[in-house]
This record gives sequence, structure tokens and C-alpha cells, in this order.
Amino acid sequence: MSRFWNPILRDLKPYVPGEQPKADRLVKLNTNENPYGPSPRAVAAIRAAADDSLRLYPDPEATVLKEAIARYHGLSPDQVFVGNGSDEILAHTFLGLLKHDKPLLFPDITYSFYPVYCGLYQVHHELVPLRDDFTINPDDYQRENGGIIIANPNAPTGLGLPLAAIERILAANPHSVVAVDEAYIDFGGASAFGLIAAYPNLLVIHTLSKSRSLAGLRVGFAMGQRELIEGLERVKDSFNSYPLDRLAIAGAVAAMNDRAYFEETRHKVIRTREELTSGLQALGFKVLPSQANFVFARHPAHDAAALSMSLRQRGIIVRHFRLPRIDQFLRITIGSDEACAELVTALAEILKN
Amino acid sequence: MSRFWNPILRDLKPYVPGEQPKADRLVKLNTNENPYGPSPRAVAAIRAAADDSLRLYPDPEATVLKEAIARYHGLSPDQVFVGNGSDEILAHTFLGLLKHDKPLLFPDITYSFYPVYCGLYQVHHELVPLRDDFTINPDDYQRENGGIIIANPNAPTGLGLPLAAIERILAANPHSVVAVDEAYIDFGGASAFGLIAAYPNLLVIHTLSKSRSLAGLRVGFAMGQRELIEGLERVKDSFNSYPLDRLAIAGAVAAMNDRAYFEETRHKVIRTREELTSGLQALGFKVLPSQANFVFARHPAHDAAALSMSLRQRGIIVRHFRLPRIDQFLRITIGSDEACAELVTALAEILKN
Repeated sequence: MSRFWNPILRDLKPYVPGEQPKADRLVKLNTNENPYGPSPRAVAAIRAAADDSLRLYPDPEATVLKEAIARYHGLSPDQVFVGNGSDEILAHTFLGLLKHDKPLLFPDITYSFYPVYCGLYQVHHELVPLRDDFTINPDDYQRENGGIIIANPNAPTGLGLPLAAIERILAANPHSVVAVDEAYIDFGGASAFGLIAAYPNLLVIHTLSKSRSLAGLRVGFAMGQRELIEGLERVKDSFNSYPLDRLAIAGAVAAMNDRAYFEETRHKVIRTREELTSGLQALGFKVLPSQANFVFARHPAHDAAALSMSLRQRGIIVRHFRLPRIDQFLRITIGSDEACAELVTALAEILKN
Repeated sequence: MSRFWNPILRDLKPYVPGEQPKADRLVKLNTNENPYGPSPRAVAAIRAAADDSLRLYPDPEATVLKEAIARYHGLSPDQVFVGNGSDEILAHTFLGLLKHDKPLLFPDITYSFYPVYCGLYQVHHELVPLRDDFTINPDDYQRENGGIIIANPNAPTGLGLPLAAIERILAANPHSVVAVDEAYIDFGGASAFGLIAAYPNLLVIHTLSKSRSLAGLRVGFAMGQRELIEGLERVKDSFNSYPLDRLAIAGAVAAMNDRAYFEETRHKVIRTREELTSGLQALGFKVLPSQANFVFARHPAHDAAALSMSLRQRGIIVRHFRLPRIDQFLRITIGSDEACAELVTALAEILKN
């Protein structure tokens, strides 16, 4: 370790994002991107915003975006926080709302960035094992804690938690923030944002990277009662006054307002997911029932790492995690119908050999 | 304070950015934006990047941008770190490189975000008073410390520090990171980046918000030896994998590569600064000799807060800081020739009354 580093950097194990290959010819099913482009209105809004006004700072509050998100969800703008992708919002949430003397709780298998934030901000935490079938047991979150974070649907399993279970966790923990990371919620899950009025301890985090096809624009948002939003604003205003650039604000507003396109594309992804699931099952894969834009699947007779490597040789990238309990699974993003068909064909060939 | 907040939020005094008025008709000389638009090539590159590829994550390394910045400065890409504006880079620097047991040192009058970062990350620090003439005395940075940060030119004074003084601080502190925040360096100062090869403890931080007219795009960069850059990468990869969106990367590369436009506009700003300085002096203002795209001026016979308010009533916004030692100064951004002439005319009228 460098003598110039803060000693905490020595033990940090940074998050490793899925590969962003520079070659275009690969079938890229590894980072849960949407196969469909963003709303044409978002693209048009960005082009219109690309002019001399870029010399000026953006609105540090991104007010028009908060208003668009609030309108969409029936909230008020001061119940909305926006950031540079939901990852930035998660970081601020870990530091500002989930760091307390008592331990933060989250599942042992979930978005692998959570333990990284704990390392960065020295957040005392305890892992709560999922059940053997990878579902979350809400009763496991009744013990003493300084905060709870749950991804719903969970990553990388794709399994959704019913709203009643979320509400049970909220009601059992009135003194802790319960953050629900709903990055994948629009592909079939039930969002908790309707519970915000009843639960001052609820923070719901969304992203425009998945269901709104804007991974390349870096916009996420959080919703909660003013008290929580104000805490996040304090962190943000002590970190970076303007995390969203002018183009991101313009594109995100247009994307939020184009409901027809959003509904059409998310339903296309859901339909493709059902077809891909059937195709994988026909090849003997066990596929967890997914509410996300990916499936998590294993083959009883084939090693996941080997399958991933064979796919890569055929120009198809999926995600494989070398982590306890899930190292025999592949996480496969729902691509276009064509890409998913290519994947199934390739897997069929690989399994034959 | 909310029971849900990390207790450190209670005492945080977030940075307050200059007002971004929603009305267009104001003469805006308050946030050091460039009066000229960005390079037309940057705008064209952004428009070209606004397409369906926004569904894909950006390159988390922003390699093409690091290469463009490295090429410009004669460094290698692994000596370059990029982020969402220099504010994000400063935040990572405070946490990753400037937080140690021994106190961080910085001037008592400087960029007012520095003490905010110290509050957010609980960085032990000591303020080093500027001389009475607001210059930095390099000998004041010979005492025990865990890091040093200096803005050059300093904000909000605009005063530059000669390279020899920077080198003296570097040589006297081989065990501390010396971060030099050069947000305004292109308007007349001498950048320290040429000292990187000789000083492993030097980190030089730049922004595209000022001299490259891209405040609205949110891009900054840092340069240093690999050891320091790697420390920043560890923080970044534990915070947000993709802080720069696809449009920001594309626009920033084009802006870095358009040297002719950069040279032309920065020299126009320098020329206007000299004219504005003369105009203010003719009205009896004392103007600190500025190497930045703003001037810091006071009038011996007029209260700065009152002047600022009178200008505001005439539709002209400048920045006034209610802070010890500098509360009788106005910080005035170098706008277009027309905007600066309007300011001088308005001040002449105000002083007459």
C-alpha cells in the first residue's frame, strides 16, 4: 500500500462492473442493459440541450427532473432525490442514512456493491443469509440493527419480494432506515413507493439505467419522506453540487415523461424473458423465477464457469460470479429476441459436446 | 436532526454554490462560467453520441478521455484520473489521499468547499492564514501535516502562486500528498503538471468547467504519478463505477483536442479581465491581480454587501462571501466584453448615488 493512501484503501475491495468490451460484434448479455434504445424523445431532448448553454452550470437541484419524477409517482418534488446513477445514490445512502453504531443488515447474496460501500465508509454490517431457495425471510430482519438494505427484485437472483413482506420489515423497524433498491422493479415487481406516506423510515431507490434504457446517461433517483431526502441532500451538497449534467437532466425528464415508450419496451423485455426461460428450461437449466431484466440459471450437469467461458468463445458474454452459494449460476441479461435465441442455440451446441 | 441520519450530518455545513437563476435576462457574473460557448467540436461530438448507444453503460475507465488528457499534457493515461467535475475528484482526494492522523493544511481563505469535505469525511485539518496581502507563504507549510491542498490560482482571490513556491512546498513535504487545485490555471497561471515526474507526492487537479466552457457537462481530471492515481481509482471504484456518462466522455475528448478554440477563448477572457480591472480601478476599486477568470475587488468607500445588492437590483449577479477577512470584496466573473461593460456602467451609477 502507498504511504500516501488513507489506510482504509488497503483493505478496500472495489466493485468490479461487468465488462464493457470495446469490440462491437459481441452479444452482450452481461450488464443488464436494455436491448432497446432509450425513448426517441430523450435522444431528441439531449440533442436540443447540446448547445452553447453547456458553458453554464446545471441547476444544482435538477428541479425539473425532480418534478417529473414526483409527477410520475404522485409525490411532491421534495420527496425526490436525484443522482449520478443509483450507485451514487446508494453511496450517499450508506454514508448518510445507513451508518450507525448498530449493524446494517443485508442479505448474504445481493448486489455486490453493498459490502464495498461498507468498506469505503466503514459501516458496521452483518450479512443475513437468504433461505436455501434464495428467498428473503422478512422475519430475519427483526433483530437489532442500525439500518436495512434490500434489493427488490434481488440481484443477481432476480427474485422479487411481495410488498407485504417489505411492509413487515418496515413495521418491525421503525427506528431504522429501510432502503429498498428497486433497480429492476419495472420488469414485474411491485414498487414500495406507495408505502412512503405511511413509513418515514422507507427509502426507495430507482435507476434510469435499466427499464428506461439510459445506462449511458447515469441517472438514478430516490424517493422517501422529506426527512430522509434532506439527509441525502446534505451529503450530496457536501460532495458535489452538480452531479447531474445538463444533458442528463434534459434526457431523463423526457424519458420519465414518455410513458408509452416505457410501457412498450418493458413489456417486450418481460415477454422475451419468459421465452428465454422456457428455452433454457428445455435445455435442462434450472431458472429462478425472475422479475428482473435478467435470469439467474444453473445447469445440474455443467459447471457455470466452463459454460461462461464456452459462450465467450462464441462471442456471447454473460456474467458469472465466483462467490459462495452462487458460483454454479449464470446471470443472463434479457437481450433482444435475436440475441436470446443466439444464446440458446449456442448453449444447445455447448451442452451437446 | 433526524434520528435516521448519521450523526455527522448534524454538524455538516454543505457548500452553497452560486445561484443558478432560472430567469435568462440576468447578467450572470457569479459562478465563474466562461462567456464563450464550448468548442463547436465538443457540441458536435455530443450530438453524435446521443443515440441508441445510450442504452449501454459508458466505459467505466473512460479510456479515450484519459488518453486525450494524457496526450495533451505529455503524460501516460495511467497518470490521469477523471471524474464528475473537479468537485467529485476533490471529494475522492480528501477521503483517499488527504485523510490521515496528522492534520491536513490549507489556507484560511480558499475554495470554501475544502472545509465541507473535511466535515463529510471527518478529516482532521488546520487552517493556515494567508498573509495580509492574501498571498500564500510557502514557509507556512513546513510544519507537521498529513497532507496539503492549495488552489492555484487561489479562490476567491485569483492570486497565483509561482511554480517555485509550489515546488518548495513539494520538496519540504515528501511524505504528504500536496494537491494543487488548478481549476483556473489556464487564465494565466503556471501549471505544476510538469513537476509530476519529479514529485510522487504531487496531485494536480483540473476542470473542464472554466477554460473549456463545459460547466454544464461535469468533467474534471487529476494528474499524478500512478501511485496517487491508483488510490483515487480505488475510491472511485468503491463509490460509482461510471461517474462520466457517454456524452460527457465524447464532449470532453473533443474539447481537449480542439486546442485552437481553447487558446482563442482563454486569451479573450484574459484580455477582458485586463479591461475590466482598469474599469474597476478607474471607479476607485482595489482589484487583486488576478490570474483567473474572475477578479476579487473591494471599494474603500462602499460596503460590498450593499454593492452586491444594488447590482442585483439592476439585474447583475456577482458573488459576495460573508466570511471573515473577505466580506468587503466582490468576486466578479469575467463575462463577455458587453457584460463587463454593463457591470462597470452599473457600478458607476451606484457609486454616484
